[in-house]
Amino acid sequence: MTKKIKKEDQGLFTIPLGGVEEIGMNMTVYECDGEMIIVDAGITFPDETTPGVDVIVPDTRYIRDNIHKLKGILITHAHEDHIGAMPYLWEEMPVPAYVTPFAKCVLEGKMTRSSLDNLKMVEVTPGKPFNIGPFEVEFVKVTHSVPEGNMIRLKTKYGSIINTGDYKLDEDPIVGGESDIKRMKEMGNEGVLALCSDSTNIYSPGRVPTETELQKSLDTIFSDCENRLFVTLFASNVERLINVTGLAIKQGRKVGYMGRTLQNMVKYARQCGFFPEEYNEHILPAEAVAKLPKNKAAIFLTGAQAQPNAALAKLANGDNFKGVEISPDDTVIFSSRKIPGNEKNIFALFNKLHGLKANVLHDGDAFVHVSGHGYREETEEMYDMFKPEIAVPMYGEHQHIIGNVALAKEKGVKKQVVLRNGYRLKLAPGEPEIVDKFIPCGRNYVDGHNILDEDRFILKERRQLSYDGVVTITLVVEEGSGIIVEGPFIKTKGIIDEDLQSDILEIVLKDVKKELYKKCEGLVTDVKEGEEIMRNAVRRSFKRERGRRPVTIPCVVQV
Amino acid sequence: MTKKIKKEDQGLFTIPLGGVEEIGMNMTVYECDGEMIIVDAGITFPDETTPGVDVIVPDTRYIRDNIHKLKGILITHAHEDHIGAMPYLWEEMPVPAYVTPFAKCVLEGKMTRSSLDNLKMVEVTPGKPFNIGPFEVEFVKVTHSVPEGNMIRLKTKYGSIINTGDYKLDEDPIVGGESDIKRMKEMGNEGVLALCSDSTNIYSPGRVPTETELQKSLDTIFSDCENRLFVTLFASNVERLINVTGLAIKQGRKVGYMGRTLQNMVKYARQCGFFPEEYNEHILPAEAVAKLPKNKAAIFLTGAQAQPNAALAKLANGDNFKGVEISPDDTVIFSSRKIPGNEKNIFALFNKLHGLKANVLHDGDAFVHVSGHGYREETEEMYDMFKPEIAVPMYGEHQHIIGNVALAKEKGVKKQVVLRNGYRLKLAPGEPEIVDKFIPCGRNYVDGHNILDEDRFILKERRQLSYDGVVTITLVVEEGSGIIVEGPFIKTKGIIDEDLQSDILEIVLKDVKKELYKKCEGLVTDVKEGEEIMRNAVRRSFKRERGRRPVTIPCVVQV
Repeated sequence: MTKKIKKEDQGLFTIPLGGVEEIGMNMTVYECDGEMIIVDAGITFPDETTPGVDVIVPDTRYIRDNIHKLKGILITHAHEDHIGAMPYLWEEMPVPAYVTPFAKCVLEGKMTRSSLDNLKMVEVTPGKPFNIGPFEVEFVKVTHSVPEGNMIRLKTKYGSIINTGDYKLDEDPIVGGESDIKRMKEMGNEGVLALCSDSTNIYSPGRVPTETELQKSLDTIFSDCENRLFVTLFASNVERLINVTGLAIKQGRKVGYMGRTLQNMVKYARQCGFFPEEYNEHILPAEAVAKLPKNKAAIFLTGAQAQPNAALAKLANGDNFKGVEISPDDTVIFSSRKIPGNEKNIFALFNKLHGLKANVLHDGDAFVHVSGHGYREETEEMYDMFKPEIAVPMYGEHQHIIGNVALAKEKGVKKQVVLRNGYRLKLAPGEPEIVDKFIPCGRNYVDGHNILDEDRFILKERRQLSYDGVVTITLVVEEGSGIIVEGPFIKTKGIIDEDLQSDILEIVLKDVKKELYKKCEGLVTDVKEGEEIMRNAVRRSFKRERGRRPVTIPCVVQV
Repeated sequence: MTKKIKKEDQGLFTIPLGGVEEIGMNMTVYECDGEMIIVDAGITFPDETTPGVDVIVPDTRYIRDNIHKLKGILITHAHEDHIGAMPYLWEEMPVPAYVTPFAKCVLEGKMTRSSLDNLKMVEVTPGKPFNIGPFEVEFVKVTHSVPEGNMIRLKTKYGSIINTGDYKLDEDPIVGGESDIKRMKEMGNEGVLALCSDSTNIYSPGRVPTETELQKSLDTIFSDCENRLFVTLFASNVERLINVTGLAIKQGRKVGYMGRTLQNMVKYARQCGFFPEEYNEHILPAEAVAKLPKNKAAIFLTGAQAQPNAALAKLANGDNFKGVEISPDDTVIFSSRKIPGNEKNIFALFNKLHGLKANVLHDGDAFVHVSGHGYREETEEMYDMFKPEIAVPMYGEHQHIIGNVALAKEKGVKKQVVLRNGYRLKLAPGEPEIVDKFIPCGRNYVDGHNILDEDRFILKERRQLSYDGVVTITLVVEEGSGIIVEGPFIKTKGIIDEDLQSDILEIVLKDVKKELYKKCEGLVTDVKEGEEIMRNAVRRSFKRERGRRPVTIPCVVQV
């Protein structure tokens, strides 16, 4: 019996649940005749507006509500913004995850034993198509800063979709070989309905320099370095990690790694055969490397974004951290970009390192980094190769999406769509059309063991607490009569120094008592009412005395 | 009777209390034979590490402790990072403030009536020296982005110090005329002991483009604009404000200003004669400008740093704000730099504006801004003109200071000093020497009516509250016996949704009771001990249930 497809489900659809209004948190739904697959499940990182939050994952209500349609999850590559939400969301998505061996390795490292027993992972080989429901899926190798980057073709009866994943068209990569341009061109000739391409670097003209060009620059910089060499980078930039390891070894240095995520990535690269075996004899614990003559030592470490708990932050304080120190005339290279939002902290880190008299090199003043994302010319090349009927730019903030749409227009692509998270785009049959703008989507906050909704008031309360501090005011009254038995008592956090400013507490208490007598003649028969009187009195009093209305938690106890 | 000078006070000294380990919060002490003057009293701005703080001012303990030495405060120019701390600190410094008319005007706008009655302001004319104790003081006109920028020469029996203030050597300024290069050269020929120069843009090669070059670029951009024209900029960039006002009027637009600080600056510029009178008839309330045909309307507004309460932030939300809206194809120009720390929020603002289909231009993609601070070549020119014996770079982070020291060395300056806040540098007689590294200094936080010390635990408490939320736990016991009469009661903020997750509160309460019975058999005879038991139980229980240890305020009441 063939399944009856609901009319509104007939056709080919895409719904981004993340990744088209931010850089990061990529998650895209594709649907064909009522069956659904997901490409990627990424995270993004909290900032000062989300205090206490560990990571941010996409809101997957739409998937949960349509779980019967879901057939599989495809992972393009092993970066946090594409794979990082899996440990939090996989339980809601009880279908196989299709991954390459390196992504599998990374995912195994991130998940608990029991979750691994329950998540079915299917290993994928680029160039070998397979079927998931109405989709013929094929991974195509592309260069990126991590091994086994992939774009994905989804072939359906309505036409083919190309989802580029994160890519650049590096003709001279150091790890994992070149992009499969031949296969891309073939696919272009076979016909492409929609090209969903990365928009991250749409405003960067030209092409990304190759990793090999960067290698030449780093080779010169390394050889000019007479003392210890520190390189900080994204742990996820596995290609760079292998690149700088090779360079340091070539120049007669021993290499040590600091930072758990970075050490893990080395482990995974070894497991999957990307880490050249001949390097192994030159790798030592960082502590041992630090004991070598300075011109024989290279230490690669986490903390390029000035994360306060990373190895570099500890060393920059001038401390000996795990047997390693930064000394005058050591060189510290930031082989990374500055993620927006982190600039100020990174500059502060530069200042600390200068204070230790280290030489500091970063992407602002030296050729020490290349992006993992293709520039404008590489995006153009994608349009040239795939000649899509519809351009559906993905992966970027709104400004990048519209920049990519403008490029598609320039390149003669007939139809372009500006997507937002939560738009349901019908690609076929017929003209492309946004059929729904209100698919539930947004950000969920991983907060300890909890996952908070975007609109939950809890984060707002935390921000209020951090701006204004908190007061508790406690009163014990006689049940029935409402006569005050003890109190009010007052305690504060984050407002004043209670020892030095106890006079203020006295004033506030006097105000509270005055209000209680004014409003209810000192007889608190109604707990709620009494608490409200105290709350208002405390806030008003502090506003007058300190210029701030603190968060106030009143408590009336009847005995 | 000549005053006896203590031996350790004999000579010429400088002590930066702010401004050499940050960009902003400039405040420098100069001392000669036991008499002291201060150059500038600036603020810097709070960030996510200082929640709830209004502004940050220098720690002036050293000045208070040596108040008998203090003879005067010199203000180089009317920018927040040089003048902004005056309203908070002037009472501690009961001496005359020497200011130019424009700075006086700005200061009058910032201070209350009563404080103005008590602060003695002395108007200064550049080129007309005057004496303060052992200092002969002369202001010298320099170009900057605000009218009446000045450097200051302090001539003493030990030699002359040049404090450059903020400057560029713009040969084509729009407002206020050129720098007094002739006088600078004369001073150079008269001999300079120490040059204390701005280091902000030491890593920018070449010279800052002139305001007139920028004007040409903006003229073209404005004339390409067919709809409404919005320009956002620093209110303090008075030269730019006058520049864009003139351009818009020239092209037949009427001009409206939004934002209180910006409107104030226009007022001050008018009062001091910097605002061309012929512009006045073209200035209308923003609401009236918004009603004109779109190609006749120009609106200049605050919010270039994405400040959430500024006019631009309100408009970018798509709202009608005070009668003004941003419509599709309107142009929004950010004629400003992105201050480190603000990039992420500024990018988010760009995305909102793109969402309104506005054209957005900023310093990343168009020539719409020039810095107020000289580039490297202009710093070189200072060394050439003044030929100082000692280079004492100021105004910058540590990395900028050492960059400027390196340049001084290149330029053949014999002696260079790397200063830090709180260093006391003896300039003469004899070799320059840092004689004290521990002068009290640092950041004080203006927090409502309060000023908090840097090391006060209050901000730490606020950060904890924002990360972990707060719990109050209240217990009423019988005095003497310690028998529990009521409670414990629990309330939370910033942790859980109490309505949806009351089960968690039940679990925590059960844990607290269990601990009370375990630790003191349920008899709380000692308030402190009981509170400690409850605090620990709550924190442990939440850690287990939610993965977080909240700030906990216990309260045991005896009845």
